[in-house]
Formats: sequence, structure tokens, C-alpha cells
Amino acid sequence: MAPRIDFQTDPSQLRHWRVEYAGEVATLYMEVDEQGGLFDGYELKLNSYDLSVDIELADVVQRMRFEHPQVRAVVLRSGKQRVFCAGANIRMLGGASHAHKVNFCKFTNETRNTLEAAAAESGQHYICAVQGACAGGGYELALACEHIILTDDGSSSVALPEVPLLAVLPGTGGLTRITDKRKVRRDLADVFCCIEEGVKGRRAVDWRLVDELAPNARFDEIVSQRAREFAARSKRTEDPRGIQLTPLARSIADDGSLSYSCVTVAIERDAGVVNLSIAGPREEPPACVEALTAEAADNWLLRCARELDDAILHLRFNEPDAGVIVFRSSGDPELLVAHEKFFLANQAHWLAHEIVLYWKRVLKRIDLTSRSLVAFIEPGSCFAGTLAEIVFAADRSYMCEGEFEGDDRPPAAILLSDANFGHYPMSNNLTRLQTRFLGTPENIEQAKAKRDTRLEAAAAGALGLVTYVYDDIDMEDEMRVFLEERGSFSPDALTALEANLRFAGPETMETRIFGRLSAWQNWIFQRPNAVGEQGALKRYGSGQRGVFDKRRV
Amino acid sequence: MAPRIDFQTDPSQLRHWRVEYAGEVATLYMEVDEQGGLFDGYELKLNSYDLSVDIELADVVQRMRFEHPQVRAVVLRSGKQRVFCAGANIRMLGGASHAHKVNFCKFTNETRNTLEAAAAESGQHYICAVQGACAGGGYELALACEHIILTDDGSSSVALPEVPLLAVLPGTGGLTRITDKRKVRRDLADVFCCIEEGVKGRRAVDWRLVDELAPNARFDEIVSQRAREFAARSKRTEDPRGIQLTPLARSIADDGSLSYSCVTVAIERDAGVVNLSIAGPREEPPACVEALTAEAADNWLLRCARELDDAILHLRFNEPDAGVIVFRSSGDPELLVAHEKFFLANQAHWLAHEIVLYWKRVLKRIDLTSRSLVAFIEPGSCFAGTLAEIVFAADRSYMCEGEFEGDDRPPAAILLSDANFGHYPMSNNLTRLQTRFLGTPENIEQAKAKRDTRLEAAAAGALGLVTYVYDDIDMEDEMRVFLEERGSFSPDALTALEANLRFAGPETMETRIFGRLSAWQNWIFQRPNAVGEQGALKRYGSGQRGVFDKRRV
Repeated sequence: MAPRIDFQTDPSQLRHWRVEYAGEVATLYMEVDEQGGLFDGYELKLNSYDLSVDIELADVVQRMRFEHPQVRAVVLRSGKQRVFCAGANIRMLGGASHAHKVNFCKFTNETRNTLEAAAAESGQHYICAVQGACAGGGYELALACEHIILTDDGSSSVALPEVPLLAVLPGTGGLTRITDKRKVRRDLADVFCCIEEGVKGRRAVDWRLVDELAPNARFDEIVSQRAREFAARSKRTEDPRGIQLTPLARSIADDGSLSYSCVTVAIERDAGVVNLSIAGPREEPPACVEALTAEAADNWLLRCARELDDAILHLRFNEPDAGVIVFRSSGDPELLVAHEKFFLANQAHWLAHEIVLYWKRVLKRIDLTSRSLVAFIEPGSCFAGTLAEIVFAADRSYMCEGEFEGDDRPPAAILLSDANFGHYPMSNNLTRLQTRFLGTPENIEQAKAKRDTRLEAAAAGALGLVTYVYDDIDMEDEMRVFLEERGSFSPDALTALEANLRFAGPETMETRIFGRLSAWQNWIFQRPNAVGEQGALKRYGSGQRGVFDKRRV
Repeated sequence: MAPRIDFQTDPSQLRHWRVEYAGEVATLYMEVDEQGGLFDGYELKLNSYDLSVDIELADVVQRMRFEHPQVRAVVLRSGKQRVFCAGANIRMLGGASHAHKVNFCKFTNETRNTLEAAAAESGQHYICAVQGACAGGGYELALACEHIILTDDGSSSVALPEVPLLAVLPGTGGLTRITDKRKVRRDLADVFCCIEEGVKGRRAVDWRLVDELAPNARFDEIVSQRAREFAARSKRTEDPRGIQLTPLARSIADDGSLSYSCVTVAIERDAGVVNLSIAGPREEPPACVEALTAEAADNWLLRCARELDDAILHLRFNEPDAGVIVFRSSGDPELLVAHEKFFLANQAHWLAHEIVLYWKRVLKRIDLTSRSLVAFIEPGSCFAGTLAEIVFAADRSYMCEGEFEGDDRPPAAILLSDANFGHYPMSNNLTRLQTRFLGTPENIEQAKAKRDTRLEAAAAGALGLVTYVYDDIDMEDEMRVFLEERGSFSPDALTALEANLRFAGPETMETRIFGRLSAWQNWIFQRPNAVGEQGALKRYGSGQRGVFDKRRV
């Protein structure tokens, strides 16, 4: 078995990044430890990255929002001489499995999105200060920032050399962000993506590849000035003090099952099924925002989000055979909604706001997880408000009707709250209920009218909130049949089916990155011209160029 | 060399379809000749189809608009007992090359789109009357119709069994049309796509999979009534008589080069380059719509569209090694625009309207062609109005500046016309200039102000209409360098790069089908779980089920 990849880290463990905090402005230095890669067989030269570098970046961005909310502008720059970042490490990619490549790209994409989300939602603006070569994934990192400053030193450049050099795509959002975020003219984008050495100087500004060019002698001064300007423009009005994201309470058993404070993950390895259970809150909601700040990382809603996020990432990378994730929950739905009400009533407070925004990201991470997702809604379950979103994120849901023999827990119910009607948009910018009811928008109004009412199976079924309703006699059989059937299908066909069915309706830059760009990249990652023995990705660094089958498909 | 696939056919040659015309209503019977497949090794049982069936369908739909414009409703039904259509022939798919599968799906998708376009643009409404099994590509054909009537005979059903049966996707628009056109609830769509035998009766209506259920005894009566209703609803006001789409004047040389009346295609096989040249009109435009009707298929604008369409399809299927298409033109730009002005002034006339709409489809076909497209704009060229769209469809354009030694033709110029500002939307529903200038919309207004003015290289370059401007000394070298460079890259990487860069901006059902769904299908078409020796697609019909690698990616 491959070593377990751990997504938990903290500032004391950083090997690849260094952060300097100075009031409203933080400076984030990329300083990749060449020996600090996740696997053997490659060195992370030229500030190239592998998953270990991105795990740290995700942690830094997350802590910036919770631990350093006073920061209003983040300058992202290289801590090395003559190179900004050479992108994803090619030897790592060349040696990685198809599944690792795909999951790695997805996680890096999600992390790039958090940079944009930090600016849009929390007024933490990322500015990229480029000195030296900024190529491939390095430039894609820059593209995720709001403002790119390039030094005019005669050699520093931005580049997307994947096509000419490696026969793959700039797949970490690169192609989508140049056309749809930066709106580079498509023929210039074509030229740009074919120039190995990239574009520098005035041309980079003229082609809209960077926002400004700074004389090298005045580079630091101009970068500082821009950072102050962005900080001043931040819409944030408070000047908050952060909380600590303390280590998760997590234990991992020998059989691979995970246990957190309110999330447990048990794996039926033969069946390829993961049972993920979430326990609702037992404690009362915080009485006031001061109490919330005192609870900090112990607060149930924050704790549950962090645990769920970690569990999903763990499953994606460490449990590839588990094709189905079964979501269950337990607890007191009204108490959960009471917690939520506190948060929604206090959205003006930075921490209450950040926690809701974090749930939005965690739920998006679930939407984007390439496993069959199913919710089993059983007696005593707690699919209320925020947790009900998981039912709507699932590919299907099965709900128990009436009393179950020998079970004295309350009948299964769904409890909708205000949170289900706008606080958690998906990547397509619709709520999960809007996406679900594209064809029958009247169902949304009907569901809205039933907020704060326990909806047992008959009512939930009538409102279209669940896929199936079964009684005591049939439920277990139906669940078993579903799991067996799902396990008998091709995992690839299911991955593609789910990717197409989950995101109906409008498209956004995010859905385009995960839907279109990623699908094309995944295709390329299967093509002999890239990954065959003579393929360009495989041969990179060997001194031999790739040999291509010239036929177009 | 594989036998050449010919996209030209006519009513006298139909083997798979039969059409009955009765005034405003036509009935199109699918009656596939089992022995009439394009290749050996399979029989087209159960009204399953291969490319030969779709070539005929495309021809029927096209002729419906030009030869039978009085038709306002088309009933699509099976000419066979107990089966509507079993979809694409699986043995054909199992044996076809990756490139053939991908191009086959693209062409069938384009043909499905023409059914929808006929209703939206020309008031020819397609109604699907389903008796018997309607599965996979059969149901995808139904989905392209405006109204689906299913008989309630206790057995007839609609199905998308690709995932459970073949480990591939319903990739001919199926997944996109159920979520985005019919707006089927996503969990029900998931269930539907996992049921091999499909859904019948009332449930098919409840799940929005069909529009109505008809008692089998009254099926024909109800279908006829619906057809009359749709015909009555058609927005078409005229009652026109059609023209004949006479056979194309086409000759094919031994070296594979093609020659039509105004299009020529020469192939440099070693370099992988196609030189496609279009000669503008020599004759004056028609004096009046009666003259246009008399010219009929000889009219330059119609003739050129038909020839270009045929040439593009020929290149896609028969010349896979030709990775670059170089577009050139020659002629009198003002005369071409004079032709266009006649058409745009007479859009109220059905034939003038149909010809412009046909150009819209041909230009979309070019956009969707997986080859590098480049326009070389040389002295004496005729990139005006409609033909200028090809410059904007190209991935890059190279324009000659000034006098060329020994060349007494007029200097290269682009001539914009009204046609460039709204008549030819792309799949993303923007014009090519809107897509080009997403980041600088002011360029569109500047270009608009220069309509009907010859824009030589300096002016065209300043307006951002072309990628490169070179003089006499540099042009030839630069063109050569470009073609060599393009030929040195991975064809797969270029296909994916171009598919991502060509369609910035908003998404539509069409862009989702060609961008997202097709990319996922192409990925699946590479995966061992589908196409490996033990894959489900490969094994279909052998009595053995596919054996799957259970790991998710």
C-alpha cells in the first residue's frame, strides 16, 4: 500500500512556503524545498511543485482567513533567485499514476480557486509579483491572483509551455483563465501557448497576460505600493483578531477507518463502499459572537467542516478503490438549525461569516469528488440545513419511511433552513435546490414554505427532495441492491456520468475548469503522445523529444 | 488506405430512411438496411446506425429545408416493428479506431443540432413518435426533437443504457439534453442512466423523459394531430416551393486533392498540411429573389457553402494526417459583399434566409473541426464578409503587407460587412468578433465603423483583426516556420488546446455537448474499462461482461 497522504499541516511544519505578516499586508514566499517532495524519484528544482507544496499552500490560504483575518492583501512571490515557479514537477507527473495526476490537478485547481474566493468573499486580495521564469503551473498560480506585476528586467517572462514541451495542457485553470478571466484574444492565446520560452516585457501587458510591468530597480517599491492600494480597497470593515485552527482530533485505525470528533469513516473494502457518518451538535449554539470567538476551532460547525474536508481529501487520494460514499448522519436536527440560525444572524461578524463560507467550499469539494455519492436518511438522522445540502449534493438519496422495528429513534426527516436557499451556491452559482429543480422551479418555493418543519419521508418525497422512499421491509434490500449495482459498473463511466449530471444549468469559470478543461486534460493524460513510452511527458528530461502519432482524432 | 467516406448522397440513393411528404407534414421513417453499413464486420440490426445512416439523415434534414420548405412539421418514427432505434451500432463502435469514434460522434452531434436548428430558425418542427425500444443513440435522436410521444403499450420504453451496458457515455448529446434541455431532475437522471431496460409508461412522462404518453390504439391519430398542431404553430408565413440541391461539381485526383467549382483542396501529405482555397464570385448577384430562385443551387453563396461543407467533412474523416488547414481565398471582395448585401436585404425571402442560415452551420462546422486552422491573407485574396468569418474562425491569421514582388494583384485586404456583426453566431451564441474581442469590446465598434472599407494589413492589424502582418521579405519564412512548428507538436495536445481556446465566453447546450460531454466521452473511449481487451465495449455481444479496474481516478 502506498504511504498515506496527509492533508493536515500547520505553520510549524512548512517546508515550501514562508509568510511574513505586516499588518494589513502579508507576503507569501514560494521557496520550494527540492528534497521535500512527497515521493521519491524527483527533486523539486526551480520552485516546481508536487502535491506536498500544494497541501501547504492550501493550508496557508485557509489560515490566512481564520488566523490572520486582519490581512487585506497578500503578495505572492518567489523566495528564490531568478525563478518564480517552473510549475508542476514534470518528473513527478511523468511517474505518477493516471489517478494521481487527475486528483492532483483537481486539488491544485481547488486551491487556486480559494485564492480568488478569498478576494471575492473576504477582501483578502492576492497580488502576484513575478521575477524570473514563471512557467506552466507557475503562471497558472499567478493567473489565480487578482493582479500580476511582472518585472521588466529583460528576461523575466510568463509562459504556458505545456503543449510544445510536454504534449499536455495547461490544465490547472490556465487555458480557461487566459480566455475567460483575462480575456486574452484567442489567436494571441494560441501563439502564447506555443512559445516555450514565454512572453516578457511590454508584450505581456499588451496581450493582457499580466496587469503591469515594473522597472526592475523599482520592483519592490511598486509591489508594496500596489499591496497597500489593494488593502485600502478591501471591502472588509472590521479589524478582527484571528482564531487558531488547532490540530484535528483524528485517529486512524489499522483497517483504514477514520474517527474524528463528529465525523467517522468506515470502509468496506471488498464492496468498495465508504460509510461516512456525521454527528450533529450536542452542545447549545454560542450565545453571542464573543462566545463563538472563544469556542474558536471547537465550534461544532467549524469543526465539522474541517473534519469533513479532511475526510473527503483522504478518501480521494488514499482510498481509490472505494467507489461509493454513503453519507449518514445522526443527531438533533432542530439543534443543528439553531446553530445555523446563530451564524446566519451574525453574518456581519467576520468569524461567523468565514465559517459559512468555509462550508460553501467544503460542499463544493463534495460536489467535485469523483465517487458515487449517496445519502441514506434513516431514523435519528440529522440532515438539516447545512447537512441537508449533502443530500442534494448526492447522486441519489434513499429515505426511510415510518417506524423501523426495534428502532426507537425519531423517524427519518429532512429539515430545511434558510441555509438551503442561497448561502451555499455550487460551482455553477446556483444553489443545489435550484440545480435540482431546474425543470420545476415551483418546487423551490414549495420547499421554502416548509422551512423549519420536519419533513418526514412522504412529505420529502412529495416535494422531490429525495430519490426514493422505502419502508422498514424494503429499505435494507434496496440499499444493498444499489450498492451492488454501483459496484458492478465501470468506475470511469460513472465518473464521467456524474461529472455531467451534477452541474446542469449555467456555466462559470469554475465549472468550465472542472468540466471542460479537466476532461480534456484527463483525455490527454491517457494519450500515447503524452504518456506512452515515446510520449513527450514520459520523455521529458531524457534529452529525447517525444515521438508523435500524427493522426488527428 | 481506407475507402473514402463520401458525404454526398441524394433521395434516390437512400437505403436507411424513407420520407413521405403530405403538404405541411412530412413523415420520416427510420428503416435501417442491416446490410447497408459503411464497413464490414457488423449488421445494422434493430435500427442501429453507423455513419452511413447519419450521412443520409443529415442529407434528409438539409433537403427538407431547401427542397421541401413547405414542410412545417416532421414526424420521425421507425419503419420497423417493435423497435424504434437501438442507437449506434456497438460492434461498429467496438471495432472502430479512436479517431473514427470521435469524429463519428461529432458528426452525429452536428446532425442532431440541425434538427433543433430547423425548428428554431425555419419553423420545421421535429416530433418524435416512439413505438418499441428507443435506446442509447435512439433516444438521443428523440431528444433532439421538440416533442416526444411515447406509446403506452406496456413495453415501449426510452433508455440510455450506455453506462451499465457498455461502460461509455450517452455522448451524442444525451446527458446534456436530459439535464439542460429536458431539465430532468439530476438524481432521476442518474437512476435513468443506470437502468438497462429503460423507463416506460407514465413514469417516462413524470420524469420529463418524454412529453406525452399515447394509448397504443390511438397512437397514429394522436401523432397526426400533434403534427398538425406543430405545423399550425410554425412561425413561417410564406408557402414556398423548394429548389433542387443538384449534385456537387467535384472531382478527386489520384493524389487526393479535390476540386469543386469554387473550392479547391490540395494536400501536402508529408508536411501534414491542407491548402484549401476559395474563389469568390465572378458573376453579378441575383437581380431579384425570382432570379435567386432560378439560380437555385448554382448561386455562388449556396454553392460555396455546400462545397466548403463537403470539403471539411471529407478532410475530417479521410485525411486524418493533415493536421493543419490553411485557408486562402481569391477574388473581388466588393463583388462578394454585393452578393451578401442582396441576401441580407432579402432575409424575408425563405431561400435567401436559408442560405445565410446554412453558412452559419458551415462556419460552426469549421469552428468544431479538430485541426489547426490558419488563414493566409495574400494579395488578391477575397476575405470579405462571410469569408472573413473564416479568418476569425482560424486559430491564427497571417496577412501580407504592401506590394509583393512580381505580384500585380491588389494588396491583401479584409473587407468587413454587416454579415460579420450578428448573422453568424458561433456555438457560444456570440459572433466570432465578439468572442475575439471579449476583453476589448471597443474593438468591435471600431471594426463596425470600418464596414465596407478595404482594410489593408496595417489597418487590419491595428484593429486586431489578424494575428500577424508581414511584408514581402518575411511572409514566406514566417508561414513556413509556423507550419513546421505546428507539425512538430502533439496532435492531441493541439486538439485539446484549440477546443479550449476557440469558445471563450458564455456556454450553451451546444458548447456543453462539444466541450464537456465530448471531452469526457473521448476520455472514456481511451479507458481500458471500455476499450481494453476485457472492456465492456469490446466485449459487448460476446456473452461475457466487461472486467473492470475498480479504482476511481
